[in-house]
Amino acid sequence: MSYQAVPLNKAYLLLNHGPTVMISSAFGDKRNIMSAAWSTPLDFDPARVVVIIDKQTYSKELIEASGEFTVLIPSKKIAKQVLQVGTTSGRDIDKFTEFNLTTVAAKTIQAPLITDCLACLECKLIPEPHNQNTYDLYIGEVTAAWADPEVFSEGRWHIKSDQKRSIHYQAGGEFFAIGDSFHID
Amino acid sequence: MSYQAVPLNKAYLLLNHGPTVMISSAFGDKRNIMSAAWSTPLDFDPARVVVIIDKQTYSKELIEASGEFTVLIPSKKIAKQVLQVGTTSGRDIDKFTEFNLTTVAAKTIQAPLITDCLACLECKLIPEPHNQNTYDLYIGEVTAAWADPEVFSEGRWHIKSDQKRSIHYQAGGEFFAIGDSFHID
Repeated sequence: MSYQAVPLNKAYLLLNHGPTVMISSAFGDKRNIMSAAWSTPLDFDPARVVVIIDKQTYSKELIEASGEFTVLIPSKKIAKQVLQVGTTSGRDIDKFTEFNLTTVAAKTIQAPLITDCLACLECKLIPEPHNQNTYDLYIGEVTAAWADPEVFSEGRWHIKSDQKRSIHYQAGGEFFAIGDSFHID
Repeated sequence: MSYQAVPLNKAYLLLNHGPTVMISSAFGDKRNIMSAAWSTPLDFDPARVVVIIDKQTYSKELIEASGEFTVLIPSKKIAKQVLQVGTTSGRDIDKFTEFNLTTVAAKTIQAPLITDCLACLECKLIPEPHNQNTYDLYIGEVTAAWADPEVFSEGRWHIKSDQKRSIHYQAGGEFFAIGDSFHID
């Protein structure tokens, strides 16, 4: 599987249904990845996203130092790793190595993508110190977007296998998998 | 069915899995309701949420005038109304009447709740003019939270019927219903 480019003005569709995401970051020779249940699209064109990143995290340091981050939409196949990277700190370990995450180079930023995602967004931070300091709220402009063409192409989701469902975190290790699509006329 | 109170520090759990929401508002004798795919929890305690509300909307006017709004988590049963209130303007019609939405009085704000939701949050706007004007981004502090005890109680989701699934908007009238829960140790 390799990722296929998604037009930037369609990038919001990758997050529109509210999946739990992972966020990777890198600065110099440091890198990290965390999980985040709290994110939302913010605008279509320019494509922008909001992510909430706790002030205690190592990711916050790397994102503020580099001005970049990814938003990765993991498949159910790597739900265990989503929980693992969400409950450990990158100050103590290299989570990519520790949890067997295979990286893929991003195109527009230094932070790595990983395999087994449904989609990946590369983002440049739009600095907003008040939001970052007061609310842990980070705004990014999407500079590249990618999707697994088996589940998303031509601006539409078409998820057909259980292991390629998006996952939606509840609490305490409990997730929802996304269910079936339905249409309203 | 009647709603049961949810402790405020558990309110984030109602939004954590990324459902599409409706947002109601009221000011004086005016009221409105819209749909929003773009929202996220922002903090646990005090419980805060972010919603993105386009600057052209009637809802924006009522929310800025009243300093209040709701975040309603509709069940699949009312998916058609979610689409309807998302594609019409409250400047032209009273959407509650037009689309047969039954209101329920909120406890801490004037904006009404509606029936057939999985959960409802009452919010007071935390004014942030820069975010509102630049990004259409609104921050609310949750002042009351409610859930249908058939699907959420004791801090946990337990959705058992198809019509009481949360819905997750894609585009063009296409939704995902939330799927099954799974646990990772």
